[in-house]
Amino acid sequence: MTNKQPTLAQLAEVLGAELRLAPGASSEQVPAGLNTLQDAVAGEVSFLASANYRRFLEDTKASAVLVSAKDAEACPVSTLIVPNPYLAFAKATAIYDQTPTPAAGIHPSASIDSTADIGGDVYIGPGAVIEANTHIASGVIIGSGCVVGEGSEIGANTRLFPNVVVYHGCAIGANCTVHSNTVIGGDGFGFAPADGQWTKIHQLGSVEIADEVEIGACTCIDRGALGNTVIGRGVKIDNMVQIAHNVQIGDYSAMAACSAVAGSAIIGKHCTIAGGVGIVGHVTIADRSHVTARTLVTKSIEEAGSYSSGAPFMDSRSWRRNAVRYGQLDQMARRLKALETAFKQQEQAPD
Amino acid sequence: MTNKQPTLAQLAEVLGAELRLAPGASSEQVPAGLNTLQDAVAGEVSFLASANYRRFLEDTKASAVLVSAKDAEACPVSTLIVPNPYLAFAKATAIYDQTPTPAAGIHPSASIDSTADIGGDVYIGPGAVIEANTHIASGVIIGSGCVVGEGSEIGANTRLFPNVVVYHGCAIGANCTVHSNTVIGGDGFGFAPADGQWTKIHQLGSVEIADEVEIGACTCIDRGALGNTVIGRGVKIDNMVQIAHNVQIGDYSAMAACSAVAGSAIIGKHCTIAGGVGIVGHVTIADRSHVTARTLVTKSIEEAGSYSSGAPFMDSRSWRRNAVRYGQLDQMARRLKALETAFKQQEQAPD
Amino acid sequence: MTNKQPTLAQLAEVLGAELRLAPGASSEQVPAGLNTLQDAVAGEVSFLASANYRRFLEDTKASAVLVSAKDAEACPVSTLIVPNPYLAFAKATAIYDQTPTPAAGIHPSASIDSTADIGGDVYIGPGAVIEANTHIASGVIIGSGCVVGEGSEIGANTRLFPNVVVYHGCAIGANCTVHSNTVIGGDGFGFAPADGQWTKIHQLGSVEIADEVEIGACTCIDRGALGNTVIGRGVKIDNMVQIAHNVQIGDYSAMAACSAVAGSAIIGKHCTIAGGVGIVGHVTIADRSHVTARTLVTKSIEEAGSYSSGAPFMDSRSWRRNAVRYGQLDQMARRLKALETAFKQQEQAPD
Repeated sequence: MTNKQPTLAQLAEVLGAELRLAPGASSEQVPAGLNTLQDAVAGEVSFLASANYRRFLEDTKASAVLVSAKDAEACPVSTLIVPNPYLAFAKATAIYDQTPTPAAGIHPSASIDSTADIGGDVYIGPGAVIEANTHIASGVIIGSGCVVGEGSEIGANTRLFPNVVVYHGCAIGANCTVHSNTVIGGDGFGFAPADGQWTKIHQLGSVEIADEVEIGACTCIDRGALGNTVIGRGVKIDNMVQIAHNVQIGDYSAMAACSAVAGSAIIGKHCTIAGGVGIVGHVTIADRSHVTARTLVTKSIEEAGSYSSGAPFMDSRSWRRNAVRYGQLDQMARRLKALETAFKQQEQAPD
Repeated sequence: MTNKQPTLAQLAEVLGAELRLAPGASSEQVPAGLNTLQDAVAGEVSFLASANYRRFLEDTKASAVLVSAKDAEACPVSTLIVPNPYLAFAKATAIYDQTPTPAAGIHPSASIDSTADIGGDVYIGPGAVIEANTHIASGVIIGSGCVVGEGSEIGANTRLFPNVVVYHGCAIGANCTVHSNTVIGGDGFGFAPADGQWTKIHQLGSVEIADEVEIGACTCIDRGALGNTVIGRGVKIDNMVQIAHNVQIGDYSAMAACSAVAGSAIIGKHCTIAGGVGIVGHVTIADRSHVTARTLVTKSIEEAGSYSSGAPFMDSRSWRRNAVRYGQLDQMARRLKALETAFKQQEQAPD
Repeated sequence: MTNKQPTLAQLAEVLGAELRLAPGASSEQVPAGLNTLQDAVAGEVSFLASANYRRFLEDTKASAVLVSAKDAEACPVSTLIVPNPYLAFAKATAIYDQTPTPAAGIHPSASIDSTADIGGDVYIGPGAVIEANTHIASGVIIGSGCVVGEGSEIGANTRLFPNVVVYHGCAIGANCTVHSNTVIGGDGFGFAPADGQWTKIHQLGSVEIADEVEIGACTCIDRGALGNTVIGRGVKIDNMVQIAHNVQIGDYSAMAACSAVAGSAIIGKHCTIAGGVGIVGHVTIADRSHVTARTLVTKSIEEAGSYSSGAPFMDSRSWRRNAVRYGQLDQMARRLKALETAFKQQEQAPD
């Protein structure tokens, strides 16, 4: 970190920003890091990416701020003018990121099957297990305690953080990130009922994950029953997300934490699924759909738009009073209708 | 796999099916595998288990289809006639399953306490830990990185996939499957409040899991506070299910992903709990109850039936308009009642 | 266990209880353990902590019962009289707890970086990984397969159960407990959209966990984007809880299983968050707030109280009939208003 930190001028260049120095400021200053407008101290770089935060601009202690041209005037300190400050901020985080990257090498306590095909510049951590007939492409980082099951493939420069389990026969693309304790390729949940018992439907498919995918911690992506579960290119999945067998998620869609998608649902491209959303099985979600937090999607979404379900939040006393009426709603609707009809008849009646 | 694949005639025999060959077909053909009616290609076997899929029957490319007698006529290719095609399909998946089964043996990197009682034909993978006074029955497969805590027992032919943790003093039956990163026997959540702080209630009970149970990935089954958490015979539990302390789940019940059961709830036998269901503590659920997706069960279910809660799914604009009325429901109900009363009085009033 | 079990007299002393012996009972009796009033057998100690269980008092088989002074009269057996029986029960569970505590020592299969600073009386289990520049204080127990990332600190007497992953740069306080397969310090979920793709916002902050915190199994606490995610002193978090980046949880709050808190939300002190609760991002929850099971908190809570959301539980047929009306609620409200207006006009109309 310390020896690679850029000067303001270098930062501007990397981010494609126009640097406008405040009086007395130097383009050779080396910013100490990134921070919000409110929390930044002298020496740090901040950003203004939403009108909600504009009120913090005039009092910021930051030494420079990533802003769009229209906000540059109002900034009391040096500015780094960019078309999209939030994107520029995202790019800047890559510069200041301190996540350790282990040097290539295979830890002696890792168990590597002799038939595994391991590329160059691969790191395999302590206790990791690479089973038979796997392909680990160049630049891959396999964290401590990870397991890559028989015949699975991990694409170039992909990183598995510690204790990820990839079952047999799965394929993960290049430049992916999978966070700790996530399980890829576990069995989908399929059992045929007969005589009051359950007969297992063995899950014969697998999981295919395209390039540039990020998957959070403690997430499960089940293998397909017949055919594969498929995660498209550039998809971003948060922690504790459940992806059931034979789900398909289109390119560049994103799913926040604690969402769950039941079997064979098809999610389009560029969808944004907020936290805690449930999607029932066998539905199709149109490209560019947005689903708000905690919604249960019970049928297909035919066209792009924003979709919701749920009951509103209130104090528990009000809630109890109102919730009990939910169970009377149909009756209320019928009574309302009857009253309307009676009223109308009365009005129409000859006096 | 390749050397054990059956001919059509052998498949019929194993499944107890009546094979009716289409013109030109041979009972000596070796099917390439299983697939859906829509996706099957020549050489594959398919199945018709639900009327919803009958429309795909006439155009299927499959070489043979598992059907019931009543659908056999309509099938354009060879048929394997069985009383229950879905069950026959489930049995067939066992034949085509390619999940690797490791050969018996204990990996040198596993840590096995000298007091552990290990049966015959056991596999213990790299880095697995078998603590003191455990009993690992014959035919058990303990995946890489699993931990079996002090005094716990794993029944015959049970398989733990990698990185499962079983705490001390737990008992898992025979022929069970536990998927990766599941935790069995962690502490139930119990704390006594006093003086604005929490005093831990140590969890003195354990977990008992009967035979033929399957448990998904990243699921938690907590140990009992006093007495045990008990999972009955043949129960099937999906991924990311939370089973709190002292829950009892009756034989052959099934719980889909992301369900959660709070402390001391008792779920009957042959229940089906859909995905995302919550069950509050200390309730009892009658045998053969069905609970639909995302329901919060807030009281006991006294008799078998289907139960639900939740608000319906719609576009966000309609949802906002309607949801705000939810907070006015009680007031609306009172106004409706007042209007009914006023109308009645008016009608009854002498002119 | 067996050699440290106290006599009734010793138990009374440790718990600060007044022992009143039933006729024929001896203060030198060694209780066999703890149990509920209903399930206790002779030789066991029970407790009466809630009026709901008073009905079980007269028939209990327990040899002694922890009771408050006001319930002592009604108890047919020996009593241990305390001001707060539930708290006394909690303290008693510590005495009878049989969770194994490993002896200090570092297992030879653990990977300890040479720069790690390891205190006295530390246990590090098989396959655990302690990365560079970590500080492991005295009395810490690191379970098998745990990973403590670069630069992280674990406070004195804290215990990590097996397969916990702590990412780099995190700080966990003293006397904490973290259950298996929990992930601390994984990346928060942040991506900037641009040109239909996502650019990662590297998560530059970390996680700070104060002393006396307990965290359940399969829980995720993400590192901050800028600045840290902060868990206060004495906080208790259950299984499968998701804490997003930059969340702050105040001292002595408790969160039950399957709760989720979105980014930058601030939860006050002494809050109790029931199971399955969701809290959206950037809200503030007042100290001493209580949120009921499965509530979605969509705005800040300004003052202490109990808060809820959700629709009630019923049989599926009633539910379908009522739920469909939810989508008509706004229309119903308008029709009700129109009817009220028409009725009023009619009444006011001159005959």
